[in-house]
Amino acid sequence: MAGTQHSAEADHPTLARLMPAVILSHPQMGENIGAAARAMKNCGCSDLRLVKPRDGWPNPAAEAMASGGSDILDQAAVFPSTSDAAKGCTLLVATTARKRGMAQTVMNPRQAAEAIITHQQTGGETALLFGGERAGLDNDEVALANIIVTVPLNPLFSSLNLAQAVLLMGWECRMAALHATADSKAINPPSSEPDEALADLKTREFFYQMLEDKIARGGFFASPDMRPVIMRNIKAMFNKSVLTEQDIRTLHGIMKAIERGGKALDRDQT
Amino acid sequence: MAGTQHSAEADHPTLARLMPAVILSHPQMGENIGAAARAMKNCGCSDLRLVKPRDGWPNPAAEAMASGGSDILDQAAVFPSTSDAAKGCTLLVATTARKRGMAQTVMNPRQAAEAIITHQQTGGETALLFGGERAGLDNDEVALANIIVTVPLNPLFSSLNLAQAVLLMGWECRMAALHATADSKAINPPSSEPDEALADLKTREFFYQMLEDKIARGGFFASPDMRPVIMRNIKAMFNKSVLTEQDIRTLHGIMKAIERGGKALDRDQT
Repeated sequence: MAGTQHSAEADHPTLARLMPAVILSHPQMGENIGAAARAMKNCGCSDLRLVKPRDGWPNPAAEAMASGGSDILDQAAVFPSTSDAAKGCTLLVATTARKRGMAQTVMNPRQAAEAIITHQQTGGETALLFGGERAGLDNDEVALANIIVTVPLNPLFSSLNLAQAVLLMGWECRMAALHATADSKAINPPSSEPDEALADLKTREFFYQMLEDKIARGGFFASPDMRPVIMRNIKAMFNKSVLTEQDIRTLHGIMKAIERGGKALDRDQT
Repeated sequence: MAGTQHSAEADHPTLARLMPAVILSHPQMGENIGAAARAMKNCGCSDLRLVKPRDGWPNPAAEAMASGGSDILDQAAVFPSTSDAAKGCTLLVATTARKRGMAQTVMNPRQAAEAIITHQQTGGETALLFGGERAGLDNDEVALANIIVTVPLNPLFSSLNLAQAVLLMGWECRMAALHATADSKAINPPSSEPDEALADLKTREFFYQMLEDKIARGGFFASPDMRPVIMRNIKAMFNKSVLTEQDIRTLHGIMKAIERGGKALDRDQT
């Protein structure tokens, strides 16, 4: 079960408290329950509730698929009905195709995730409700929900398997929770190594001046009038990336190496 | 292949043009290629490029898993190297664990999706690059990319399978593209049936007045002083949901039925 763990760093503690429970109603294949648990683990959800799993519980097929999520299976609770599984919930969110005649608010996954995290932040208890592989949720189950989620996928092929639906909702909840906890470090991965010094303007301009001298010597500027415009474009091209001091040293090295190669070529030819 | 199609409605035409190509480098299991194609189809991606699939191509195991995405497999192109597969790309986005020493911009999936859709909107050609199941992307492949995506999942268990990674990036691109095309109808599912008239204030107040009269008659208001406060709370409770005219008719019916039941009970007892 630990085979695919990449890090011993614990998940964000506040985030774990903000994530909703997951109720799987009448799931059929153990493999799908296991894959759903794995997706929950990916997203930092832990509270799995099963309503009448077809093949009983525990289920070895679920364990085989759960990978790092097997602790979630070990702690999963089994209930005789969806209303029992959701008994303590103050907000129940059903993921289902649009049911006509249902009066609840319909949201996309991103809107629902924000509603869920806000509810959890104010002390509420939320569960995400998913139907079984074949029949989905019945109308009585949908009627229990406060919010109905529909996923705006390709209308030509909108069906997701159970684990993918859990992953998608879990991911949206995780992003909403990361925003809510203002964990900007987790949301925004660092773009450069912390100990990499960036090149300041003076360092860059010195490089551009060296470059200009060298290419001018090589007859790069056919028309002297155009020289400032061409140099401006060259600078802009380099400046599109945020260059480090090491980058500039490398560029100087490249420039000098090309120059040396040219000199050697000249000597060989004379 | 058509078994899981729910609708004949075509996907948003502009959106289809905004979605990136998907390059799978050295994929191993045909099943995973098929599941990735299915996830692409869900999200409205269609351009699949395979770099040296281990078990050759075409692969029956991929077909078996692709479900509604089998047309994507039929049109998939096979390349001898990642740089061949990405040859026409003006923006290459690699999904991988953080590689130290790589200088590219690192983004989360949501930031990358916005960059991708903006690039596509301005006529660029983008591909998402995913590594094989076992080894992921090698450093030379990552070096080809302009943007590196890391997914801020649970650090205790952050590994996604190939199809899930494709789904997650495809979903983020789809949401970004829906926003970019201002297809608010697709993003925001309608919350009430179009032909369901909502109850106006007068209709609701009439109901509350009827209700107040009836419960007052039943001795509901033990303290006359508290009557306005209690009625205010009752109204607020009902008004938390947006009631339709049909809802109000139903509530009147319920109220009257309870009243009739009480009268019958009274007659039986006298």
